[in-house]
Amino acid sequence: MSLKQQLESDFESRKHWALRRQMGIPNNRRLWVCACMDERLPVDEALGIRGDHGDAHVFRNAGGLITDDAIRSAMLTCNFFGTEEIVIINHTECGMMSAHTDTLVRALREKGIDVDKVQLDPDLPELTLREGSFGKWIKMFSDVDEVCARQVEYVRNHPLIPDHVTVSGWIWEVETGHLRPPHFRVGEKVNTNKAMGAK
Amino acid sequence: MSLKQQLESDFESRKHWALRRQMGIPNNRRLWVCACMDERLPVDEALGIRGDHGDAHVFRNAGGLITDDAIRSAMLTCNFFGTEEIVIINHTECGMMSAHTDTLVRALREKGIDVDKVQLDPDLPELTLREGSFGKWIKMFSDVDEVCARQVEYVRNHPLIPDHVTVSGWIWEVETGHLRPPHFRVGEKVNTNKAMGAK
Amino acid sequence: MSLKQQLESDFESRKHWALRRQMGIPNNRRLWVCACMDERLPVDEALGIRGDHGDAHVFRNAGGLITDDAIRSAMLTCNFFGTEEIVIINHTECGMMSAHTDTLVRALREKGIDVDKVQLDPDLPELTLREGSFGKWIKMFSDVDEVCARQVEYVRNHPLIPDHVTVSGWIWEVETGHLRPPHFRVGEKVNTNKAMGAK
Amino acid sequence: MSLKQQLESDFESRKHWALRRQMGIPNNRRLWVCACMDERLPVDEALGIRGDHGDAHVFRNAGGLITDDAIRSAMLTCNFFGTEEIVIINHTECGMMSAHTDTLVRALREKGIDVDKVQLDPDLPELTLREGSFGKWIKMFSDVDEVCARQVEYVRNHPLIPDHVTVSGWIWEVETGHLRPPHFRVGEKVNTNKAMGAK
Amino acid sequence: MSLKQQLESDFESRKHWALRRQMGIPNNRRLWVCACMDERLPVDEALGIRGDHGDAHVFRNAGGLITDDAIRSAMLTCNFFGTEEIVIINHTECGMMSAHTDTLVRALREKGIDVDKVQLDPDLPELTLREGSFGKWIKMFSDVDEVCARQVEYVRNHPLIPDHVTVSGWIWEVETGHLRPPHFRVGEKVNTNKAMGAK
Amino acid sequence: MSLKQQLESDFESRKHWALRRQMGIPNNRRLWVCACMDERLPVDEALGIRGDHGDAHVFRNAGGLITDDAIRSAMLTCNFFGTEEIVIINHTECGMMSAHTDTLVRALREKGIDVDKVQLDPDLPELTLREGSFGKWIKMFSDVDEVCARQVEYVRNHPLIPDHVTVSGWIWEVETGHLRPPHFRVGEKVNTNKAMGAK
Amino acid sequence: MSLKQQLESDFESRKHWALRRQMGIPNNRRLWVCACMDERLPVDEALGIRGDHGDAHVFRNAGGLITDDAIRSAMLTCNFFGTEEIVIINHTECGMMSAHTDTLVRALREKGIDVDKVQLDPDLPELTLREGSFGKWIKMFSDVDEVCARQVEYVRNHPLIPDHVTVSGWIWEVETGHLRPPHFRVGEKVNTNKAMGAK
Amino acid sequence: MSLKQQLESDFESRKHWALRRQMGIPNNRRLWVCACMDERLPVDEALGIRGDHGDAHVFRNAGGLITDDAIRSAMLTCNFFGTEEIVIINHTECGMMSAHTDTLVRALREKGIDVDKVQLDPDLPELTLREGSFGKWIKMFSDVDEVCARQVEYVRNHPLIPDHVTVSGWIWEVETGHLRPPHFRVGEKVNTNKAMGAK
Repeated sequence: MSLKQQLESDFESRKHWALRRQMGIPNNRRLWVCACMDERLPVDEALGIRGDHGDAHVFRNAGGLITDDAIRSAMLTCNFFGTEEIVIINHTECGMMSAHTDTLVRALREKGIDVDKVQLDPDLPELTLREGSFGKWIKMFSDVDEVCARQVEYVRNHPLIPDHVTVSGWIWEVETGHLRPPHFRVGEKVNTNKAMGAK
Repeated sequence: MSLKQQLESDFESRKHWALRRQMGIPNNRRLWVCACMDERLPVDEALGIRGDHGDAHVFRNAGGLITDDAIRSAMLTCNFFGTEEIVIINHTECGMMSAHTDTLVRALREKGIDVDKVQLDPDLPELTLREGSFGKWIKMFSDVDEVCARQVEYVRNHPLIPDHVTVSGWIWEVETGHLRPPHFRVGEKVNTNKAMGAK
Repeated sequence: MSLKQQLESDFESRKHWALRRQMGIPNNRRLWVCACMDERLPVDEALGIRGDHGDAHVFRNAGGLITDDAIRSAMLTCNFFGTEEIVIINHTECGMMSAHTDTLVRALREKGIDVDKVQLDPDLPELTLREGSFGKWIKMFSDVDEVCARQVEYVRNHPLIPDHVTVSGWIWEVETGHLRPPHFRVGEKVNTNKAMGAK
Repeated sequence: MSLKQQLESDFESRKHWALRRQMGIPNNRRLWVCACMDERLPVDEALGIRGDHGDAHVFRNAGGLITDDAIRSAMLTCNFFGTEEIVIINHTECGMMSAHTDTLVRALREKGIDVDKVQLDPDLPELTLREGSFGKWIKMFSDVDEVCARQVEYVRNHPLIPDHVTVSGWIWEVETGHLRPPHFRVGEKVNTNKAMGAK
Repeated sequence: MSLKQQLESDFESRKHWALRRQMGIPNNRRLWVCACMDERLPVDEALGIRGDHGDAHVFRNAGGLITDDAIRSAMLTCNFFGTEEIVIINHTECGMMSAHTDTLVRALREKGIDVDKVQLDPDLPELTLREGSFGKWIKMFSDVDEVCARQVEYVRNHPLIPDHVTVSGWIWEVETGHLRPPHFRVGEKVNTNKAMGAK
Repeated sequence: MSLKQQLESDFESRKHWALRRQMGIPNNRRLWVCACMDERLPVDEALGIRGDHGDAHVFRNAGGLITDDAIRSAMLTCNFFGTEEIVIINHTECGMMSAHTDTLVRALREKGIDVDKVQLDPDLPELTLREGSFGKWIKMFSDVDEVCARQVEYVRNHPLIPDHVTVSGWIWEVETGHLRPPHFRVGEKVNTNKAMGAK
Repeated sequence: MSLKQQLESDFESRKHWALRRQMGIPNNRRLWVCACMDERLPVDEALGIRGDHGDAHVFRNAGGLITDDAIRSAMLTCNFFGTEEIVIINHTECGMMSAHTDTLVRALREKGIDVDKVQLDPDLPELTLREGSFGKWIKMFSDVDEVCARQVEYVRNHPLIPDHVTVSGWIWEVETGHLRPPHFRVGEKVNTNKAMGAK
Repeated sequence: MSLKQQLESDFESRKHWALRRQMGIPNNRRLWVCACMDERLPVDEALGIRGDHGDAHVFRNAGGLITDDAIRSAMLTCNFFGTEEIVIINHTECGMMSAHTDTLVRALREKGIDVDKVQLDPDLPELTLREGSFGKWIKMFSDVDEVCARQVEYVRNHPLIPDHVTVSGWIWEVETGHLRPPHFRVGEKVNTNKAMGAK
């Protein structure tokens, strides 16, 4: 092979990388991830992927929650960018469990904010919340295993997400550095002979 | 120092990591990042941080846009988790510029979806969109430099974001692998003697 | 320095290593460790020492328990080999909690072993067990945190262990790969807003 | 393979590691090691195994001796945890040869300890020693090769150890950093033409 | 194989390296490169070759231009040293576009240099320039893509370069660290939905 | 320092690298190198610089000769790009010594080339050679030490090169992989007691 | 394979290494090297062997000369230790060419040494030198290529060296760091077109 | 510093290395080593020097013995090349102890060699052996510790070795991979309580 042919091939690869979206090339794993924005959640390490180098579209928000923005982002990647699998990651000791909704709303009001009148999306005044729902919009929750399991269902049933998409949900344990399915904690089975089921 | 003292100190560090949020410890850089979910945007590398290992809360959605979910997430971290700086990253060749809104809406309708009736947030029926605004809610855009600059303003002026928070916006160039401020492209200044300003 | 002097000094070091015990040189950390023999307990890594390369005398048995052999070994190192600190490590999911004493004794009897007549120490017939105590001698236990805390007391109060020796006890979590003090599990505080103490 | 399937498989592996004992999984080499607690005896390096990372149950006490505790530990692993091989390691320049029993007993008495009344196992008063046997219980010895060879026999013949278990004994030479069988010292054959058997 | 045979073979290799030219051995890739002398143009990295360790003859001058010296050098390697491919590299932001010819000539005259009388080649007075052509001889240019494309034609058509030689031309982008063909800039296609060709 | 300030500083550095020439920034060592294009001459390694990563302007042609193109390139860098030192490298076993001029000229004529009419520079017909000088223009030479020493003088005395520029010349020995000054070969002094000057 | 079998095999290997000579095991390459003791002659690197780790018997003296001691050493290894190849290495700039014999003898006499009466071998008074031969015994020489070639013949013809042994001689060039056969210097062929044999 | 100055300094270093002997530069450690040629004796590793890269003159023969050749080589380096220290290394399991002299002489005679008439040094017929001394000339020995100690004395007292030279002797243990002084074996002190001197 002449060097000319090799350089042409190299350039073609570079073009395919940079112009992926307009050329209709999906991400490497055809994967969309929804994860919490927490600084203790190493998404790539947890999933064994290289999300930042081509493998996946990684959506992250406070809580790793299926909001309207999550639906918008998943709708785009699944319907228009070739994605075929969704993985949701919540995590233990999430900030969303660190306080009660009332505590937060009261604190904001004390700062002088009128939570019922605030425009939620600064670029989309058409998006509105029924009065009195501001606290619910913050989405604090009380049990991470339940939230994770429920969100898998939300996505599976949403009309904007195609039926053939594979969906699963996982809990990242910040205290162990491992992923687990909801409602199954290895740590619960190891501390006493009763937990271990001794006969 | 006895080994006992050393082990006690090690355990204390581990506890501080795992229980950060309930102990009121902020992330290492007191930083919130808003970035696109694109697979070609390596957030940590672009910013020179270790977001996944303690440095920042990293919010990502389709486009890296300031949606209501972005405001919710930023509000939480700036008001309750100790964050003091916001960095917004958009990127060239974003999927949000790869098609026109009308094309997408038409495609969804052809799949049988009634875009005016769909519940946007599966967990929050109280959140609604004025009829006919579905296309605008997708948030396709036409010029990444303008979007980036405008979003910095949205955040600076939003009532839920404290005034003392530092805010800046950047464009990640997928074609160069570098970050730049909006409206300044190094590549525009290098190709002809006219671009180079020869005298 | 001539090479001769250097080689003499090197030889002296080697002699000090090989003849440590007869020259009265203690181990590097003046440390005795008592740990379970389990294959999932990496003693050096857990303690941040190099026990196998000079740092400590490492005693290990089934359970990491303070038996008569443990007392014998600790007595020798603390009274005659210069040791001044003791660290005890038990671990979660220990085999000593995997069954009840009765189950084991019955199994041995079914193999034809007369557990009341067996000579426990093949080299020391003078060591005997009161009849009916064989099951207790196996030392199965039911709660690893309690065992660990109790063993620290045993050692602190034993007449063969000098009073000035520092003693501490730790639990190795096989499910997290971390050490913790007895009765404090980080993992218990992270799963719901109730566990996290949300206000 | 979808990422979901991969994550499920990863979780299964983790569970098998953490819950080994209650799931009836043996250590990787089905091996029990009895070794001295000396700080110059690098067990893993000597045997070419990773004892601390799953390969073996490693019992260690003062001398690497077959005490009642050694029998207890070996009995558990061979009868209940799937072990099928036993390796015993003694070592040269062992502290157990560094003094005579009388010297030690006298020294303890001078510290005010009544060696005939001391309770050997703080958790098992049922275990007793015939009066006057305390010195023998310490188990000082005079020839490491003989001790090693003898201990192999003790284990082979003990009723609590199943007959099919493979047993071998080795001497670790602290002065060479190598293992050898008892009664065969390479170093004895190299120093004069007589030792070398010159013809 | 005896060591003697091995040493003979090693010596033969060394001789073939050192005496390449007189033994008629071509460079490894049978390649001649013409590149700018700029300090930001890493020739080996750009081409994926090891030009400095046997792969190519690398010609470099101000601009990477096909001068009479370039023709002389290419003529020698293609006709007498076995070369069969030519690659030309120009680069963005070249110093040759940083000023206009007139500016430079005026500056030299102000230093007292008589540009019409200067002997261009200090070893070859037979080489002369038509009066008034000094400025053109400096070879400042205005558009790097055009220059690159034109130079490929110059080489393909020059009588001193054999017809069978493969010739290609490339632009090194100092702003991206990548090579591209002339007249195709990836960066032009990524910034707005218009550039991206959104439908 | 906020991340914003750090990103601004990073961008400034990148701009300074890419726009060096138009911003008037010299190369790192203010150095111009003239070297042969030979594939056995590793310029960076020979000089201990990183020429391809900012350190120098590296001119290379057949022979490493001071041609009119060399003068043009040196003139530009010394007068307009901030260069203050010149290093010339010739090398042993250069192709320019591998044949006599007549042999080459005859070979070209046999290929049907009219060497007296050929246009030397395809882009500069104003550059001409006195008839019959074609062979001299090829610049074959007979002694590399002499050529190197002479070229240093050519550059020192040329009107287009400023007087304050430091100039030196070196021979790269392909047979040893080392640089030496002209007319001093270490290898000549080592083979017999006569060469070594034994007394 | 049980660990017992593996440890037995490991011990066997160690015994074979340590007791090589009495067990009749040759060195790995069945090789004897004769080299100068000079500090610039890296024998292993020069030959591509690991002489110090089992590959060869390496004889070294002042000059790398075939003395009676060299014959004694080669006789032993070739007749009794299984060696089948001999490699001799002399080197350029050897100290043996750095002075004339007379100069040295005079210097020793000036120190008060009676060179005709000195006992050469302190352990073998039976070894004597004909009077007046002391200077010759020092073995200074004048041409390293000649010495090397001659020594190969000495060894090939000596009655104490078996005929089937392969013998070769090489010159190490301290100025290039390469080995060459006697009477062939690559460096002689590279400096002028005459040396290069230009036509 | 200009690059010119740096290249001049580099060249000076290279000259000093290659022309050491004629410029009167000693080896780096002013050291002469006498060692056995055995393939299990890693001289550099044993001494912690880089003998092959400038540190020492390394003499090696069968046995590491002080022969006339050793005296010749030591005389040269100590009197003329600046050496000031001598280190002698013998080793355990040396081939020189693997057989009795008579066995070897008989074996040579059986091959048809007339050991009384053989010319020992092929280049020095003036060197002769008293008849009947051939066997003694082979220098087999019976105790390596005695030989090592005795050789130190030979060198200290030899008239050709200056008095101020430091001399020491060491035994390399092939069975341990360590150096020791003669008559002191660490391995002798570690095997029984008697060897360890227990009280």
